[in-house]
Order: sequence, then C-alpha cells, then structure tokens
Amino acid sequence: MIQNTQIVYAKPPADGALPDPAGTFSVVRTPFDAQAVNLKSGEVLVENHYLSIDPYHRFGLYDPALTRSQFPATKPGTIISTYGISRVLRSANPKYAVGDLLYSWVRWERFTVVDEPNLQYLQKVKAGIDPVHYLGPLGGPGLTGYAGITQIAKPKAGETIVVSATTGAVGMVASQLAKRLGLTVVGMAGSDEKVRYLVDELGLDAAFNYRAAASLEDALKKHCPQGIDIFFDLVGGKILDAALTQMKLGGRIPSAGMVSQYNLPHDKRYGLKNLHSIVGMDITIQSYRSSSWEHLVAEMREEFEAPLSDGRMKFKTHVAEGLENLPAAFYGMFTGESFGKTVVKV
Amino acid sequence: MIQNTQIVYAKPPADGALPDPAGTFSVVRTPFDAQAVNLKSGEVLVENHYLSIDPYHRFGLYDPALTRSQFPATKPGTIISTYGISRVLRSANPKYAVGDLLYSWVRWERFTVVDEPNLQYLQKVKAGIDPVHYLGPLGGPGLTGYAGITQIAKPKAGETIVVSATTGAVGMVASQLAKRLGLTVVGMAGSDEKVRYLVDELGLDAAFNYRAAASLEDALKKHCPQGIDIFFDLVGGKILDAALTQMKLGGRIPSAGMVSQYNLPHDKRYGLKNLHSIVGMDITIQSYRSSSWEHLVAEMREEFEAPLSDGRMKFKTHVAEGLENLPAAFYGMFTGESFGKTVVKV
Repeated sequence: MIQNTQIVYAKPPADGALPDPAGTFSVVRTPFDAQAVNLKSGEVLVENHYLSIDPYHRFGLYDPALTRSQFPATKPGTIISTYGISRVLRSANPKYAVGDLLYSWVRWERFTVVDEPNLQYLQKVKAGIDPVHYLGPLGGPGLTGYAGITQIAKPKAGETIVVSATTGAVGMVASQLAKRLGLTVVGMAGSDEKVRYLVDELGLDAAFNYRAAASLEDALKKHCPQGIDIFFDLVGGKILDAALTQMKLGGRIPSAGMVSQYNLPHDKRYGLKNLHSIVGMDITIQSYRSSSWEHLVAEMREEFEAPLSDGRMKFKTHVAEGLENLPAAFYGMFTGESFGKTVVKV
Repeated sequence: MIQNTQIVYAKPPADGALPDPAGTFSVVRTPFDAQAVNLKSGEVLVENHYLSIDPYHRFGLYDPALTRSQFPATKPGTIISTYGISRVLRSANPKYAVGDLLYSWVRWERFTVVDEPNLQYLQKVKAGIDPVHYLGPLGGPGLTGYAGITQIAKPKAGETIVVSATTGAVGMVASQLAKRLGLTVVGMAGSDEKVRYLVDELGLDAAFNYRAAASLEDALKKHCPQGIDIFFDLVGGKILDAALTQMKLGGRIPSAGMVSQYNLPHDKRYGLKNLHSIVGMDITIQSYRSSSWEHLVAEMREEFEAPLSDGRMKFKTHVAEGLENLPAAFYGMFTGESFGKTVVKV
C-alpha cells in the first residue's frame, strides 16, 4: 500500500544547538489511499516531487520556555510548510487538472491536500523552465536576492559589493545580478572548491575562503582596497563584524539573514564589536523579508528566465534524495556540507 | 596685556580611555594684540563668547599606531574646530561689521581669525533669539534630531519611539519633536533628576533611569508593551542591544551616535548579541551625519524658533564657565555629570 511519509517536528534542538537530524524530527509513515481522501470544493491533492529547505525554517524551532524570539515558536507535532514542486493527483478545483505540475506551498511530506487558504500560492510551472528553479532563482531565494540588490542596496555601476554565503541560494542570485549591473563583486565560501566555482563558473571578480583566512578584515581589505560600498549579508557574526570596519561612506548592508547565529544559545552568540563603525558614515543596515516584495516576482522572473535558460546565469542545486533524508540535508545546510541551494527530491 | 587662551590637543588618551582633562589637552595662553593681527581681505577677527563641545569631537582623538578608525586622526598640537557664538572685533569683510554677533565656525580658543574657507559658515544671530540656541536646537544638534526624526525615522502618529541619551542636546530635540508629531515617546537618563525633567518639563510619556534598571530589556518592555517602532539611538552598546529585541516589524533605528563606545579600546567594547533580532523583521538601522542634511537647516529653524521662544519647546544647557574648564566639561559629557547640551562660556 502507498504511504504518506511526513517529516514531523518532534522537539526543539537543545538551546541554540544544531537541529540534530535524529532528535529534532521524526519520519512518520502512514498508509495512504489517494482515492479515499475527502476533498472539499476547491481543494487539490498533490504529490510533492521537490521540497525546499531553507535556513529560515530554523526560526521557529526553539523552546519558548528557554529562548525568546520575535518569531512564534513552532509546536512539536507540526509539519513544516515550504515551497515545493508538486503534481496534481486529484482536483476539486477547475483551475488545476490532474497531472498539472505546480509550484506550490505545501509541507515536508509526500502528499499534501492544498486547502482554501493555500490555493493562492499555487502556480503552474511554465513549459521550458527547469521546475527546480522555482525553488531557487525564480522563487523565494531569487526574490530575496533580487529585492536585496535592486530595492535595498540600490547599486551604482562601478561600486564594490561583497556577498557573504555566496554559494548559497540567495548569494548565487545576488552576486550574479550585481555582476550584471556593473559592480565589482567579491564572494566568499567555506572551501576552495566553492571559491573556484564563484570565480570560474559564476564569473565574480574575486572570492576567498573565509575558513582559511587568518584575518577576515585583511581578506576584505585585500579584495576591496577602496572599501566596500555594499555588503550583502546572509551570515552575520564575525564576517559582518569584519565588513563593518571596511564600509565606505554611504554604504548599504542588505541583511537577508544571519545564518551563523541561528544555532547558538544567547551566551554563545558572537558579540559584534564594530557596529559603532557606522557612526557618522551614512550607512544603512536593512533587514527584510522577501514576502514584503512579492509584487516584484513577475519582474524578477522576467529578468532571470532568459539568462537561466541560455546559461548566462547559473544556479547550483544540492539535491538530497529521499524524503527520509530531509533532516540530514537540513543539518548539512548549516554545517556547510551542502553546496548550492538545498532541495529534497521526494 | 590681553591673552589668547587656546585649548590645544596635547596627546591621545590611553587606548580607548576617557579624554583625561589633565593630559589630553593643554591650556596655552599667548599675549594677544587684536590690532596687530594682519587680516587679509575678506577675513574677520572674532572673539568667541560661547563654544560648543560635542561627543563627535572625540572621534579624531586616538593614536593611529594603536587604533584604527574610519575618521582621520587629529594631530597633536591641533586646536579643535567647533561651532561658536562670536563677536566681530575687526573686519576686512563688507558683510560683517565690528560688533556683529555671529553663529560661527571657530576653534576652542578665545580669539579666532576666520579665514576664507570658513567664512561660508558665518551667520548673523537673529534678533530675539537666545544665541546659545544656535549651538543646540537651531544648530548642529537640532539638525541631527530633526533629520533623524523627519528623514530617517519617518514616524507615523501613534507609533512608539524610544530616545536614548534623552537629556543630551540631540535627544531633547528628537524627543520633543516626536511628541509634537503625535508619537508615544519614552526617554531614559542616568539619574532620577534627569528622568523627572524628561517627564515633567519636556512632557514625554515616560522615562526611566537606565543606570538603576535591573534589566534594560524589562524596562523597555514595561514602557513599550506593544514593542518599539523607532529607537532613536545616541548611545549604542547595551542599550541598543536591549532595544533590538523589542523592535516591531518595520522598525527604524536612526543611529546618531554611539557615545557609550567612544572611550573604550577594541577589546573592551560591548559585544552586541542581538543584532540578529532584525533578521526577517524589515528593520532599518541608519547612521547619518547631520552635514548630509544641511539643506534642511532653514526648514528646521522655521519649525523650532517659535516653540523655543514661547516655551512650548524646551532646551537645557550646561554652561561651563571659563575656557580653561573646557577639558573638564568635555570629560563630564561622557561621564554623565553634565545635564543638557554642554557649552563653554569663554
């Protein structure tokens, strides 16, 4: 008999620890009969083919008795919601037919019933486009990179931008877009292989291995001798701290994430010592949610579809095979084991 | 014989220490004959009556061999430039007559020859206005408060703003302007006397003694139960760190200074642990120089002159008597001994 496999949030990681693949989630298998599912009018039953795992899924995974956060705590027993690529198995909705391939808002499971409030997020995958790109440069990560560059950084040709976590989903988009806009683009990554990819494949002006650098400040100074106009930050912590000392007058810091700090308890967090470097420097640090820029999705796709198709824009995907391997892939995203945007092939 | 007294920068404070009034500056007295001064065409000789001392004067006072800063290091032997209120003693300039009272860009000394490049900063003091207000709400500090509120914070009526260093020159302006714009305004200060002044005299909605608070986070939470829309920061360090955890979605943090960090060596600086609270919160932290908003001076004076005259807007000045007491007054500004905007009556 067919089973629905679900990745269920079991309990919070120890205060600030990594989301241990064995303890944080459990893999639950339940017999599943697609024909027996009772669909209400408008609802759609889909089978998920690819699921997105993103750093932000970490935000709710804490014990509210131990940790304070501006994000609501996820309740144990929850199956995390995410973007996916899904095929329609049954439909009680005239807009979606059996067999349609959709960019979807589903859950970390094999089968999802998309109910009324979530129908708004369904879109048919356009012919000729790699469906997985909807989970990267044509979806949320793409929008984060696109809005961060065009709306927050507002770059001028000739400026110098540094992008952290450059081989991550957002970093790949932001750095290539910046390059196309005429900026000098400096990237960084945690291995020499990734650094080579940034320069040789993505065509950045320079990149360095932040794990191997004796001093991050010196590495930035070497690659940005005139200083940094834009620091596109996804990492926070010591990389941000080093960059703060190298910012030029009028610099911008789009803050799209601080992944280095997500798995640390409060007392282990990196204490930033250089924020006062911004004083008197007309510098803007701006955090944002990609969802605040949803109205730019069409414009962004317009911008990215052609260069993705003809290879001018590249995007590397780390595909974890099998839903049961999702917890390990989630873990690997924080340890730097994965290379490129992480998705799970169900 | 008349003397020109000058406060000469002697040597940097020990790495990151307070600017020790005895060692950092020396008081130099030189015989001075106003008639013997050789004025070039266009130049003006003024006698300074009031001189402004501001936290930003600290920026250049470091040893470049020990400390790195984005600001150029002041050379020992320099007399610091500042805004003042000055009377024209001799003039080789048709625009300024002997006896004119001027808002001026002079130096920490009794007599200054205003030469060609600095003439642009001279303005006649308007009749009916307390000249010292030009060093406060009608001058640089006023502009810092005005631009920070109107251009950076862009407040909406009904929002909650917290202003740090609220009894300082900029804080008094920013908090009263915010109150006038219909915001709920929470202030803080380092003594109960100052706290009472904020509520009873300036009319803020609430204020607390940040030195007496067991937890800054709890104090902020108590006074801003719905969270903080705008944190107008002049202090940085632990107060900023506490505020970061209480910011609402879409919050703004105009950063007009981080006075708590100016007198600390790098290893003693406060390590901010909560910056990652901004992630996903659409929060903007923006530092700025008031000089970037000089074009707003006329509009700001228009806004402030009447309420200052009729007492709707208040401004407290800490007047240090005698130029030789300038170093001690400068020191007192960082220790919290002074109350209100510090000026020296020459």
